[in-house]
Amino acid sequence: MQRALNFNAGPATLPLAALERARDELLDFAGTGMSVMEHSHRGKEYEAVHDEALALLREIFAVPASHEIVFLQGGATQAFATIPMNFLRPGESADVLVNGAWGEKAMSEGTPAAKLVGANLRVAATTVESDKSYRRVPREDELKLDGAAVYRHVTSNETIHGIQFHEMPALGDTVICDMSSDFGWRPVDVSRYAMIYAGAQKNLGPSGVAIAMIRRDLLDRAGAALPKIFSFKTIAENKSLYNTAPTFAIYLVRNVLSWVKSEGGLPAMEKRNREKAALVYGAIDARSDFYRCPVDAASRSVMNVVFRLPTPELEDRFVAEAKKARMVGLKGHRSVGGVRVSLYNAVSVEWAKALADFMKTFGG
Amino acid sequence: MQRALNFNAGPATLPLAALERARDELLDFAGTGMSVMEHSHRGKEYEAVHDEALALLREIFAVPASHEIVFLQGGATQAFATIPMNFLRPGESADVLVNGAWGEKAMSEGTPAAKLVGANLRVAATTVESDKSYRRVPREDELKLDGAAVYRHVTSNETIHGIQFHEMPALGDTVICDMSSDFGWRPVDVSRYAMIYAGAQKNLGPSGVAIAMIRRDLLDRAGAALPKIFSFKTIAENKSLYNTAPTFAIYLVRNVLSWVKSEGGLPAMEKRNREKAALVYGAIDARSDFYRCPVDAASRSVMNVVFRLPTPELEDRFVAEAKKARMVGLKGHRSVGGVRVSLYNAVSVEWAKALADFMKTFGG
Repeated sequence: MQRALNFNAGPATLPLAALERARDELLDFAGTGMSVMEHSHRGKEYEAVHDEALALLREIFAVPASHEIVFLQGGATQAFATIPMNFLRPGESADVLVNGAWGEKAMSEGTPAAKLVGANLRVAATTVESDKSYRRVPREDELKLDGAAVYRHVTSNETIHGIQFHEMPALGDTVICDMSSDFGWRPVDVSRYAMIYAGAQKNLGPSGVAIAMIRRDLLDRAGAALPKIFSFKTIAENKSLYNTAPTFAIYLVRNVLSWVKSEGGLPAMEKRNREKAALVYGAIDARSDFYRCPVDAASRSVMNVVFRLPTPELEDRFVAEAKKARMVGLKGHRSVGGVRVSLYNAVSVEWAKALADFMKTFGG
Repeated sequence: MQRALNFNAGPATLPLAALERARDELLDFAGTGMSVMEHSHRGKEYEAVHDEALALLREIFAVPASHEIVFLQGGATQAFATIPMNFLRPGESADVLVNGAWGEKAMSEGTPAAKLVGANLRVAATTVESDKSYRRVPREDELKLDGAAVYRHVTSNETIHGIQFHEMPALGDTVICDMSSDFGWRPVDVSRYAMIYAGAQKNLGPSGVAIAMIRRDLLDRAGAALPKIFSFKTIAENKSLYNTAPTFAIYLVRNVLSWVKSEGGLPAMEKRNREKAALVYGAIDARSDFYRCPVDAASRSVMNVVFRLPTPELEDRFVAEAKKARMVGLKGHRSVGGVRVSLYNAVSVEWAKALADFMKTFGG
């Protein structure tokens, strides 16, 4: 088999070692004569996998004892709704920074959810342009923070727009960060956040499971009025086994985390990711008469590189010709068009190099 | 590899053919050089799988045009909360029939969820005994139905207690049925239900995805105040791709459905399932001085056979000795003890026969 050079934005490419391990034991997990997905979520065989996944997260991300780690279902989109339901009480409000489509969605899903519990969300900053596009994160002097906000929500990386915070602004003690598309690309000081969450399907596994790290003092904010299935506290107290967990997705997350650790952890990921991004942005900038990145230099994402060609026709040809060279997943999001190159952990430097080489000569 | 005789209650055994197919193409789906879980949920390769899964559900279950089919996340437990949020308006009420632990949970998760939208749930019948156990479904004359109830919720099979409705009582035009543990074990007249839903991890796939069939007129009841991620209407309108679907779980559901179809569909499943249940109940009744099924004869589940031995020590020995003969998953639920034998579609008649033979001589 020739492996595709997969630049998908998520679900995304996974480490070959993690997939091979899954294939090799798909019918017979740990000599039990059953697939891991056929095991009970409360049996000791699966529990060992579950516990290892949690332990690897704690180790690789150096998660302090102040924070619980949980697996959630429904992805980041569901968390947009359950976060205000867990943390806001009647009459309270939280701030949301908007620097792309996912920040918008945190508002559009979160606002009705906040209202269900009698609370409110408020946009503390938006960098939307008059044509509805985004090209940067907000500057510190643009933030209109509400001093009474219970928490401040921020999207560290905008997958669709290719915009990333490289330094997080001062947002106070209770920052909740949607890191879906840049979780695990480099070391992160978890203690600076009240909550970090991410769908697994970018850097850490398949779709169908999300990971959250939540400061314990926040968990108590959930009122007794909340259905338990939405309560992060209930989920944490039950070690993410309050209801049947997506066991095979968590098993794959475990496999990916094992690979991250064996490769040198997050510092090694960061080194490789910066190298890949430098290759692709380098190819853009080397032909700035032909390629154009719409994102301000200081907000360029290391994870999702977006760029335009002179015409939509050339963009289509770029994607089609790249595909002939086995490079896939390069079409920009349907809402913005153009080209998008996602460079998650499992994308190799070699793949980025192949793409950069292709960009040097394309259309030339 | 010697395959275990897996009687797990869910996550449960899956058809070998469905697993082998997954293993064989785990690294290279349809010649693309990628795993199906590495494909975009919006790409044509995954979309073909998604569409096929939906089409197979419609065909195998003979789902009428009046009903939408959707994939949900969060399992049946989350649906306990989202059902009242979708279908009840302020001041309205729904009826819930309780004949086991899952009916209890439909109440305990659903009540706070109903309150979030200003509505109410009401127990229309319960068969709970004074010692908190259950041994039967309610009789028709025990139902205290509210004429104004927007819908009536019923659990067709209680996995933990081994209790099943064999004929559904007359509950009006808007019956919502949690079929998690008996969905797809036999043909079902979907048109009789306003909504059927089920976690996949019993008869139809791995954990991490639930399936629902919902009558279209109900979908419009969701108010605009509901976060879209919880709205069944939004999910249906977006063909269950409103947010990133659990693609690999749905792919496995597709594989299982293909197998169900190739084996002769639901009529063939029913024939086999009745044969298996007859074997195990037969073994119980043949030694009624030793084995005791706590469930009333008319409510005995074809899917989950629960029984007791004279002492807890003998029950432990039963489970341990069966395990030596590669029969696993027989321990009763931690909340009730005893022995439980789950006989989902992928459990072969041979396995049931082997267990029945073991039961004939155990402790003798």
